[in-house]
Amino acid sequence: MTRCRFIPASLILALLVLAPSPARLSADEGMFPMSEILKLDLGSKGLAIAPEEIFSPDRASLIFAVVSVGATGSFVAPDGLFLTNHHVAFSAVQAASTPEKDYLTHGFLAKTRAEEIRAPGMTARITESFKDVSAEVLAAVRPGLSLADRTKAVEKKMKEIVAAAEMANPGKRAEVSEMFIGKSYVLFLYTFLKDIRLVFIPPIAIGNFGGEVDNWMWPRHTGDFSFLRAYVAPDGSPADFSPKNVPFKPKRYLRVEPAGVKEGDFMFLLGYPGRTYRHYTASYLAYEEDFRMPYVADWYGRQIDIMEKAGAGNPAVELKLAARIKSLANTMKNYRGKLAGMSRLQLTAARRLEETGLQKFIDADPQRKTTYGTVLEQTRRIYEEMGARARYEFVLDMLPQVSQLVRLGAYVLDASAEVAKPSAERQVQFRDDALASTRKASGSEFTNYHEPAERLFFRKMISLAAVLPEGQRIPAVDSALTGDYSEKNLSRYVDEAFANTTLKTAPGLAKAIGMSTSELAQLNDPFITLAAGLAPLRQQLREARARRDAELSNLSALLIDVKQKYLQRDFIPDANGTLRFTCGHVRGYSPADATYLSPISTLTGVMQKTKEEYPYATPQVVRDLYNARDFGRYRLPKANDLPVAVLYDTDTTGGNSGSPLMNAKGELVGVNFDRAWGATINDYAWNEAYSRSIAVDIRYVLWLTERVGNAKFLVKEMGIK
Amino acid sequence: MTRCRFIPASLILALLVLAPSPARLSADEGMFPMSEILKLDLGSKGLAIAPEEIFSPDRASLIFAVVSVGATGSFVAPDGLFLTNHHVAFSAVQAASTPEKDYLTHGFLAKTRAEEIRAPGMTARITESFKDVSAEVLAAVRPGLSLADRTKAVEKKMKEIVAAAEMANPGKRAEVSEMFIGKSYVLFLYTFLKDIRLVFIPPIAIGNFGGEVDNWMWPRHTGDFSFLRAYVAPDGSPADFSPKNVPFKPKRYLRVEPAGVKEGDFMFLLGYPGRTYRHYTASYLAYEEDFRMPYVADWYGRQIDIMEKAGAGNPAVELKLAARIKSLANTMKNYRGKLAGMSRLQLTAARRLEETGLQKFIDADPQRKTTYGTVLEQTRRIYEEMGARARYEFVLDMLPQVSQLVRLGAYVLDASAEVAKPSAERQVQFRDDALASTRKASGSEFTNYHEPAERLFFRKMISLAAVLPEGQRIPAVDSALTGDYSEKNLSRYVDEAFANTTLKTAPGLAKAIGMSTSELAQLNDPFITLAAGLAPLRQQLREARARRDAELSNLSALLIDVKQKYLQRDFIPDANGTLRFTCGHVRGYSPADATYLSPISTLTGVMQKTKEEYPYATPQVVRDLYNARDFGRYRLPKANDLPVAVLYDTDTTGGNSGSPLMNAKGELVGVNFDRAWGATINDYAWNEAYSRSIAVDIRYVLWLTERVGNAKFLVKEMGIK
Repeated sequence: MTRCRFIPASLILALLVLAPSPARLSADEGMFPMSEILKLDLGSKGLAIAPEEIFSPDRASLIFAVVSVGATGSFVAPDGLFLTNHHVAFSAVQAASTPEKDYLTHGFLAKTRAEEIRAPGMTARITESFKDVSAEVLAAVRPGLSLADRTKAVEKKMKEIVAAAEMANPGKRAEVSEMFIGKSYVLFLYTFLKDIRLVFIPPIAIGNFGGEVDNWMWPRHTGDFSFLRAYVAPDGSPADFSPKNVPFKPKRYLRVEPAGVKEGDFMFLLGYPGRTYRHYTASYLAYEEDFRMPYVADWYGRQIDIMEKAGAGNPAVELKLAARIKSLANTMKNYRGKLAGMSRLQLTAARRLEETGLQKFIDADPQRKTTYGTVLEQTRRIYEEMGARARYEFVLDMLPQVSQLVRLGAYVLDASAEVAKPSAERQVQFRDDALASTRKASGSEFTNYHEPAERLFFRKMISLAAVLPEGQRIPAVDSALTGDYSEKNLSRYVDEAFANTTLKTAPGLAKAIGMSTSELAQLNDPFITLAAGLAPLRQQLREARARRDAELSNLSALLIDVKQKYLQRDFIPDANGTLRFTCGHVRGYSPADATYLSPISTLTGVMQKTKEEYPYATPQVVRDLYNARDFGRYRLPKANDLPVAVLYDTDTTGGNSGSPLMNAKGELVGVNFDRAWGATINDYAWNEAYSRSIAVDIRYVLWLTERVGNAKFLVKEMGIK
Repeated sequence: MTRCRFIPASLILALLVLAPSPARLSADEGMFPMSEILKLDLGSKGLAIAPEEIFSPDRASLIFAVVSVGATGSFVAPDGLFLTNHHVAFSAVQAASTPEKDYLTHGFLAKTRAEEIRAPGMTARITESFKDVSAEVLAAVRPGLSLADRTKAVEKKMKEIVAAAEMANPGKRAEVSEMFIGKSYVLFLYTFLKDIRLVFIPPIAIGNFGGEVDNWMWPRHTGDFSFLRAYVAPDGSPADFSPKNVPFKPKRYLRVEPAGVKEGDFMFLLGYPGRTYRHYTASYLAYEEDFRMPYVADWYGRQIDIMEKAGAGNPAVELKLAARIKSLANTMKNYRGKLAGMSRLQLTAARRLEETGLQKFIDADPQRKTTYGTVLEQTRRIYEEMGARARYEFVLDMLPQVSQLVRLGAYVLDASAEVAKPSAERQVQFRDDALASTRKASGSEFTNYHEPAERLFFRKMISLAAVLPEGQRIPAVDSALTGDYSEKNLSRYVDEAFANTTLKTAPGLAKAIGMSTSELAQLNDPFITLAAGLAPLRQQLREARARRDAELSNLSALLIDVKQKYLQRDFIPDANGTLRFTCGHVRGYSPADATYLSPISTLTGVMQKTKEEYPYATPQVVRDLYNARDFGRYRLPKANDLPVAVLYDTDTTGGNSGSPLMNAKGELVGVNFDRAWGATINDYAWNEAYSRSIAVDIRYVLWLTERVGNAKFLVKEMGIK
């Protein structure tokens, strides 16, 4: 079958393959675009329906039951009812809540359609059709264009194609997606639904059971699902929220299979995976592994540590810092997982070995050598340059991200540039009639401001800047420290900066917004001075990145070209937020020595983890039903237990959240919501031993809906009697 | 077979057994005294040698290869060479080390007998014979004795028996052990070896691989073994260290089996398990579960937290507090494991159910009712009293333990009572000629003193004392706080106490040692005042405990009596530090939902955990041998790997450390060193699902000795070619 990588990384050392490997059969890798599905021999893998049932342009196939909601969802009934993850609906539920009606904590149930409430900010897209427009896009690239102009020409052409398609298809949204970088482009047409409502949301103690602690982990026990409903205008056209709207009728919805799955079952997913990097070079992997990811993970770890210490024993501070800690912890855990996986699987070395074979193939033919001979070398040089400058770029990126006051310094400088223009030409918030309210709103900047933590962050970043090598110095930092990089002088500078800034209070900030550049200069504010010094360096960095990206895009197109020649087969593009198919099997794994994790977790596991505190505070009703072993038709065969989550070796990444887990017949058996720790490396390579994704079992969804949520009518609406 | 509990706890809820259950066959529970071995049908369990090979009074049976060294060890060669755990030899290795010769860090190898060095503090006992002396002991209990006098009479009789036995067996040590509390007594005779030497000690990176993090955990990867040798006088009699001594010749040593074990194999242990509580009542379990263990575990957790925060970023403080943290963490982890297990298995409820059956049996017969009718009830009342006073007793116990200054306050008061006596009648250290050096030595009290942590500990304890209920108040605390229990006043008191004490510096303490009581009173030292106020309460508590213990001893004897009548079979006494046999199988387990841990860990697992820092800093030579997969004859069948540790369902507890793991033929296949987390409940009940013990695999011991330690001569000495 079609496969999207060269050689299974885990076999590299054993095989020492230097030539194209015979494709090892595995249905379990690959995020296939719809255009590829009919080429796959899915019947032999276990699919029990015709592949055309999944996708064919002229049928109400399964893809019409799948929606993009940022992540993914799937229709489960004729009247626009769809399932996605609790964490996908999270922000909408939060926005719909008030202190009196806290739907996050207690959950939400609309007992009637009339009680369904708006899901603020949520929209749903359904892929209607797609068309390869590579030729049209690339025709815009006239010979002789510079790299920068080439990028601009491509972007302009893509916009034109989108505009024309939306003109020709009123009410639809169009999008051109770059499939292989710099090489192939596809126009997607979407139905775009704007009136989404909350139907049934479990309490957070179920929907986010295990929280950050269990995040990226298996065995998992999270009821990470929510029911929502899409509405349209009475004439069936997409419309903004209106009480007159009626439920959307999808072309197709999924049949829900209350019998669930079992170990070894074939299954597949449809969804909108966000981003993978499997066609990237070894030099890219080395850059990520040696520089970018460890810098970020270490720094986030340090920040979390500082914030946790700041919050210890001080609930008010703890609350202020909680969201920031949560977000940093998620990324840090992901990066640490990737770094561990890259090291364990020796991904960079494996890819380098593949490229040795590719380079030999290129060099073996004079014409190939002329066209492609230096592609890998040029790519390597760019990433090596990035590596050599990584610490410098990290500091430039992070300073305004880490230090709120540096960011505010840049912000008031931007504002001063805006107010120098005539009012009508400014960004909206800086126009004369908006300035007062912009100033007033800026007070919210301090909601989560905690000076002791800010000082530590800022000091650490300045101390990193202080030790940058020659040629990568930041003059603004050098002059702030007057060339004295001792600990003592660092402390002096930080103390003075915080003592002398006007930006750290709401009135001071409000006053600075809209000042002219010379007025700002007179403030002699250390953070404004620093931000002003950083601005040209940050602009240079943006330009350098645009140049690198254009070069890499060009090189990437050449690389894919020659890889196709080398491997003499098709392979599939990296994930890019467009609709993809992936299949595999319900399957356990061994994450460590002497340890085997089986692929279906149970309510007994929920109870084993249950405590009185969030995120393990299982609601009493669930405890009671468990103690009575009241599992009804959802009971696991051969065990007096209820299935909770499912593990499988299918190929997913971020964006697949909420994807329907379907059995061989295309029936819904679970809702995908995470990957196991080892599968964080999916972004770089799928691995048979470690790539595992996690769904909430449909039996747990149905049991919770029916027995805990008392929403049997929803189970009935899904056609289950 | 003989079994030592009523009903498997895990079956209770399913069976609702209210009468004696038919004994479910399981070779895997029980720490059997030697007297019981011949009653067991060990052949049908898998033992391939005659049980008399393990123990018979008139043969050089396997028990003569087993030594008590605090924990356990076993002879593996004719010349007194024995194996035990690294952690058992730890203190001796530490004591033998100097900063220049750091045997803990780097390990130790004596290349010749002459290079073998003393193991300071180590001795070895071999059980030579035993005899039931219950009748003789209990004859000392004349009718009409009070409980307190009864205890004294028993203790006196036991001492007399020991003295007589040692007189009759020159050179031997005698000990009378209480088997069933208040009911049966056995006289043991031991050979007592006093010249023990270090032979081969692996570096701590191997011997304590995983440290506190892995402690109580499976899968485990610790090379927790050490080779030592016992020496005796040239005439073969036990003797203190002397260069003239010669290796001890044990009556029996174990044959070492380099082929190791495999999953499912029958195996058994001999060893000296310390203490179990399986014959204790449900009321005792409830007291432990609801009061004592959670109080201690929570408090230790809080103390560790305080100390970790105090040490963060301050290596000097960290070092000061490290040993205290380690010791608290070990107990806390053990207690938390027990509490989790008691809750998971509902141990207390199960035992209560057993006792319901027993009580019915008692009540069914008038005579039984007269003798035993109130035994359970009386026991319950004592534990309920202890529960009702648990917080009070906890505070009284903990105050001087937690607060060094309270302890020193009590100490200088004791000293003042001593110096009031004529010099010759005082404790040695307070005699006139010793006082100066006692004062001088007291400076060492401050080696690990860290005032910020001490303040927090003290404050927390005082705040616990402040909320004790009426009738359990501590007047000294009430008067110190002058009846004002506000946070503010608490802080004031703590601040003033630390400001005004003379005990927190070495000179102040030295000066106070030997002062008269009135001189101390004049110091007006808040900690001395508090200690003086606590003293009578602590004395009352000691007396109350002696009274309770005597009552409980009496009740326990009655309980065992009637349980034997009820169950109509023998059962075995709780572990009490005497030689025991236990058998079972090499077996994995499921510690949590969807998780199965297999019973043999590998060197791959060591490498997975390996980092650059202790306790995971695998020596380079091990890494190199692993990378070369150089495992020689110790390679696992069917896997290119080396076995490291073994898991089995045998019944062990503390004291079994170092016990020889023997196969069906009685050959050595591992060295027991720990239990899995779930098996911390072994102290209260053996459980088929959770009770698992851990040994270092003999193949890992031999490979490390031969390949890493370059001590092939030891492997040869063990008769392996």
